[in-house]
Amino acid sequence: MSDHAPSVAMEAVLKPSDDLPDDMPKIRGYDFNHGVDLQAVLKSYLTTGFQASSLSLAIQQINNMIEKRLEPMEADDGDELKQHSGCTIFLGYTSNLISSGVRESIRYLVEHKMVDAIVTTAGGIEEDLIKCLAHTYLGDFSLSGKELRLKGINRIGNLLVPNDNYCKFEDWLMPILDQMLLEQNTEGVRWTPSKMIHRLGKEINNTDSVYYWAYKNNIPVFSPALTDGSLGDMIYFHSFKNPGLVLDIVEDIRRLNGLAVFAKKTGMIILGGGLVKHHIANANLMRNGADYAVYVNTGQEFDGSDSGARPDEAISWGKIRADATPVKVYADASLVFPLIVAETFALHFKKLTAEKKAD
Amino acid sequence: MSDHAPSVAMEAVLKPSDDLPDDMPKIRGYDFNHGVDLQAVLKSYLTTGFQASSLSLAIQQINNMIEKRLEPMEADDGDELKQHSGCTIFLGYTSNLISSGVRESIRYLVEHKMVDAIVTTAGGIEEDLIKCLAHTYLGDFSLSGKELRLKGINRIGNLLVPNDNYCKFEDWLMPILDQMLLEQNTEGVRWTPSKMIHRLGKEINNTDSVYYWAYKNNIPVFSPALTDGSLGDMIYFHSFKNPGLVLDIVEDIRRLNGLAVFAKKTGMIILGGGLVKHHIANANLMRNGADYAVYVNTGQEFDGSDSGARPDEAISWGKIRADATPVKVYADASLVFPLIVAETFALHFKKLTAEKKAD
Amino acid sequence: MSDHAPSVAMEAVLKPSDDLPDDMPKIRGYDFNHGVDLQAVLKSYLTTGFQASSLSLAIQQINNMIEKRLEPMEADDGDELKQHSGCTIFLGYTSNLISSGVRESIRYLVEHKMVDAIVTTAGGIEEDLIKCLAHTYLGDFSLSGKELRLKGINRIGNLLVPNDNYCKFEDWLMPILDQMLLEQNTEGVRWTPSKMIHRLGKEINNTDSVYYWAYKNNIPVFSPALTDGSLGDMIYFHSFKNPGLVLDIVEDIRRLNGLAVFAKKTGMIILGGGLVKHHIANANLMRNGADYAVYVNTGQEFDGSDSGARPDEAISWGKIRADATPVKVYADASLVFPLIVAETFALHFKKLTAEKKAD
Amino acid sequence: MSDHAPSVAMEAVLKPSDDLPDDMPKIRGYDFNHGVDLQAVLKSYLTTGFQASSLSLAIQQINNMIEKRLEPMEADDGDELKQHSGCTIFLGYTSNLISSGVRESIRYLVEHKMVDAIVTTAGGIEEDLIKCLAHTYLGDFSLSGKELRLKGINRIGNLLVPNDNYCKFEDWLMPILDQMLLEQNTEGVRWTPSKMIHRLGKEINNTDSVYYWAYKNNIPVFSPALTDGSLGDMIYFHSFKNPGLVLDIVEDIRRLNGLAVFAKKTGMIILGGGLVKHHIANANLMRNGADYAVYVNTGQEFDGSDSGARPDEAISWGKIRADATPVKVYADASLVFPLIVAETFALHFKKLTAEKKAD
Repeated sequence: MSDHAPSVAMEAVLKPSDDLPDDMPKIRGYDFNHGVDLQAVLKSYLTTGFQASSLSLAIQQINNMIEKRLEPMEADDGDELKQHSGCTIFLGYTSNLISSGVRESIRYLVEHKMVDAIVTTAGGIEEDLIKCLAHTYLGDFSLSGKELRLKGINRIGNLLVPNDNYCKFEDWLMPILDQMLLEQNTEGVRWTPSKMIHRLGKEINNTDSVYYWAYKNNIPVFSPALTDGSLGDMIYFHSFKNPGLVLDIVEDIRRLNGLAVFAKKTGMIILGGGLVKHHIANANLMRNGADYAVYVNTGQEFDGSDSGARPDEAISWGKIRADATPVKVYADASLVFPLIVAETFALHFKKLTAEKKAD
Repeated sequence: MSDHAPSVAMEAVLKPSDDLPDDMPKIRGYDFNHGVDLQAVLKSYLTTGFQASSLSLAIQQINNMIEKRLEPMEADDGDELKQHSGCTIFLGYTSNLISSGVRESIRYLVEHKMVDAIVTTAGGIEEDLIKCLAHTYLGDFSLSGKELRLKGINRIGNLLVPNDNYCKFEDWLMPILDQMLLEQNTEGVRWTPSKMIHRLGKEINNTDSVYYWAYKNNIPVFSPALTDGSLGDMIYFHSFKNPGLVLDIVEDIRRLNGLAVFAKKTGMIILGGGLVKHHIANANLMRNGADYAVYVNTGQEFDGSDSGARPDEAISWGKIRADATPVKVYADASLVFPLIVAETFALHFKKLTAEKKAD
Repeated sequence: MSDHAPSVAMEAVLKPSDDLPDDMPKIRGYDFNHGVDLQAVLKSYLTTGFQASSLSLAIQQINNMIEKRLEPMEADDGDELKQHSGCTIFLGYTSNLISSGVRESIRYLVEHKMVDAIVTTAGGIEEDLIKCLAHTYLGDFSLSGKELRLKGINRIGNLLVPNDNYCKFEDWLMPILDQMLLEQNTEGVRWTPSKMIHRLGKEINNTDSVYYWAYKNNIPVFSPALTDGSLGDMIYFHSFKNPGLVLDIVEDIRRLNGLAVFAKKTGMIILGGGLVKHHIANANLMRNGADYAVYVNTGQEFDGSDSGARPDEAISWGKIRADATPVKVYADASLVFPLIVAETFALHFKKLTAEKKAD
Repeated sequence: MSDHAPSVAMEAVLKPSDDLPDDMPKIRGYDFNHGVDLQAVLKSYLTTGFQASSLSLAIQQINNMIEKRLEPMEADDGDELKQHSGCTIFLGYTSNLISSGVRESIRYLVEHKMVDAIVTTAGGIEEDLIKCLAHTYLGDFSLSGKELRLKGINRIGNLLVPNDNYCKFEDWLMPILDQMLLEQNTEGVRWTPSKMIHRLGKEINNTDSVYYWAYKNNIPVFSPALTDGSLGDMIYFHSFKNPGLVLDIVEDIRRLNGLAVFAKKTGMIILGGGLVKHHIANANLMRNGADYAVYVNTGQEFDGSDSGARPDEAISWGKIRADATPVKVYADASLVFPLIVAETFALHFKKLTAEKKAD
């Protein structure tokens, strides 16, 4: 037995290192000996590492969007395609977030005109409207599907939605579909998903609703597969007793792309994956890439899904600018989006709304 | 120090157990001392546990669909809504799987009329057509987005698609869009995504294409958000030089739901999440639930996403029957779908195609 | 075409539902129109759904541990196995959390005697000590391993640790190993991982260190695979120039299990998976299950790993009581553990530390 | 409305691309029109993309290890530290894989001396031995923990292990522990986890057992935290009636590191995360990095865990050589490891065993 450790091992383990730059952030978390100060806790996340740092960078990225947004702009003459702020913000989210209490954070952004265009799925529309008619409840991920079906209770993760809610939705929606068809046939209205959502927002007439505020504030909401949900079920039923309604998706793609093309700068805030993620990114390809981007989702890249793709994949496509510093937070949005809103839009509420009132 | 171990510990650790039924499968994997026999390896997966067992159960579930499918049925008079097999199979997949070599497995199923309806995203359509025009390559997940954009190379996970492919697609598509608009304006054709995909399948006229075979075999393909991809880019560009094309999604939801409602039995095979998963399940709600279901995806339920929801959540909604035995395989579909096809549709090729020819 | 929607579809979609109990929590998120109040935001998480609700339940679960802990107990006569609080809390965490800024939250708990036993990996020990010698920095998940190795910079997720830090650690540790061996040979000390960690905590003599406080407060720290890390590298090198050190893991398992067996009630707080999760749960089997449990990790159950197993699997083993209400939060601990500490231990700082001082 | 699409959009979408090298693999999956040929299906995985390609690359990587292994070497004089093959292969796996049918694949590798060193957890040892005493069964991930505990049935993912199996294990193990203690006290045996596992393999004397073959073939098995499992429970119980057994982990770290240091080349095959992944990689740091590496697990890097770290992180630490081409397959090992063995070790069975016999 030698009395010297093998030199290959010593050299590999004790390899000397280059110095890192002095201004690199050093890892250090919040010291609770300073008391419970949640704002300070969140501030410490930048130097906490892992997704705490990612959350912190996402907050910075959105605050950059807001700063750019507040730069003085030309007068608003009502032309949707003329940028009315220094940074057009596209917000996307999946249906489940509207079912959850993240809806209230989203509604706040829309109520105060803090975002400029929305992309969501059919469920992302109808769940908001249905919540104006009846409650969604907290349940558990492991409740038996069979027992729930017997009781007519639908499960969304750990949420429960009584099926009566959808019956109430049918009662509410059917006369509106009649009216829409009438307007199509008599006034030549060419309905698109975004126009229909605008109309539903007007009809729900409820300040709890995201789409009421989108209607009030003229924020376009895109949902090309609007038939993929309870809305589609109702449109299907309606097509038997009163056929002929047409929902055109071509006009909407032109409208969405136009918002990206003619924006001065753009920012994307995308919660979840699937259509909402791809649709916003694709629109931003039309301007050779978004300037700012934040993704919040739990998807992984290894299966090649667009949902799980890192922002760097979008750079290869020209959907995010090559010089941008996009951020992905790997987390359920319910955990982090309210915190993000607290540290960005809500923090800058006065400045953001002062500008709007000055319009 | 006592010389007896604490009795609470002894009793907890050495708690006696009830006997398990004799016919419960015992865990035992493949013994390679029997030689390399891949079919036997896959057969051993039932008693291997974890996702190996799930894969085995998924294969059984699909073989149950096939068995039901082969039951003798009434004559085919060409009415799409009349079930022509004992089990109508809905196949859904995300865009990335068409970009990958899973496309060849899908094309095989469509070529031989082994499935009855398809739901996919815009990318799930265009990537198949584009592959008839130029190649997709194997790259790496970690290639730099910035460097790729400089070279005009788009990344999809570890795949690379030269941007010239999309230029070729534009050249191919534009005259077709002109022609579609002409037919709309002169012959009163009311285009829907499914009709457009049928037409594109005809035009591509290439036996490598999934949608060529869907066209040949009259298998409807649904993609309500057909504008969310390169097709949408081209439709957008086309709308400037030749405006007016309308793509209606209402007629398609009626068509899709009808296939579910009037089927004798239904089976769902869904690869990936997002719209394709929800849309097929929602259609099956119209018949109070699918009889058979296989999900293959990497999504997790904890964020309440529909993508990650287990089949049991769909049971609560009536999208899968309460007495069904649906299976979810937690895996990238590229790893398992070719194996599934090998052990199901391809294994029963003769019986499945004999029946078709007898039509 | 019928003018009635298919009745099967109508009945499935519009199935009436049973009423849910009046006192079930209704989903509603925080309303930022009430201003930015982070404590109120976190309070709203219970009714936000998904992992926001799980975080809220985890906070409740830990507050239940604390409430039980504060119940009056018999006097402290220094016998480790006699419970000195109404609830013995086991804290487990993986190495990366000590590398991250979560370390400061952990140190706070140990400094103020808020937990009673710790299980971690070798890295979970040495990274704390090394941080007393030199800094860890914020980097990026996608930095090139090859380029970093050339510079002698080690990556841990998005953290960077210069290799010089490990050289400093060697300089610090070697004389201590000499001394430990001397005490073994001359005083008959039988070293175990927990005794060695106690000694290292004393030697580091730095109030930033978790293990300094564990030493000061006599909180045992278990790490049966203490050789699996830089400590093992140094022990390996040391074994050449000064052989003979023995680290016994049998005495430690007796010590750890004893803490569980003789506790009045126990709570487990486990951040991450692998050994730290299994070891604490296994110790709690010795008492027929922990009374309270919180897991925070990103593992999934589908691969049958212990890391990803839900608390309900531990119930089947008797590692958590059958009547307990354990909580798993699916998140990177860096995102949520500081928030958990803020709403639990730090919130009850006065009561928790008053009790200790009264001892 | 302009009649030209915006030029920024046209240019971004239709950006020309550089040509890709002619020899880059083109994506194309298996064509089932060629019949069901599973070997050909697996061969097609290289050009299938996503994890199918990763699986293919992992197979190549292991075949590279085997090729190097078969290079002619000096004579075997029984010195463990002298490399007896051109490539020393370290195999690591978590406990659950031994509980599953992957155990039979592992046993095959050990039976035929196809690997040189093993690292696993306590469960990875005891579950193999227990399976020689009684069966493990296939269950379901969603069985109720409470109901199972009442029946004394333990759940591991979708596997079920009757608690009687552990009672049988106690009966078997206790006399061995008595004997080990006797040998320690009378013959001065200094037990380490690897020596104890060697002994248990001898005692179980069952050709189904991995550790029987490890004993027969003198393949060292490392498990530094051997007390973290049922073995620890039994050692704990034994310590009351017959105290004094010592298990030293220092000697084992020297033994493990020595195998890495003195190997000509090394390959790592690591199934799962936690200790087994870190311990093998850390040993390979002692030689400035493994030459070949394959990881199979479902962990993700975003939480900074070592379990989820990509191989590139190990390169930064010097645990994998900077010029190596390591592969990670993102999958449950139960799905892919039997396929990997089929296409590597089992395929080269004759050559691999011929060499051994020639020793």
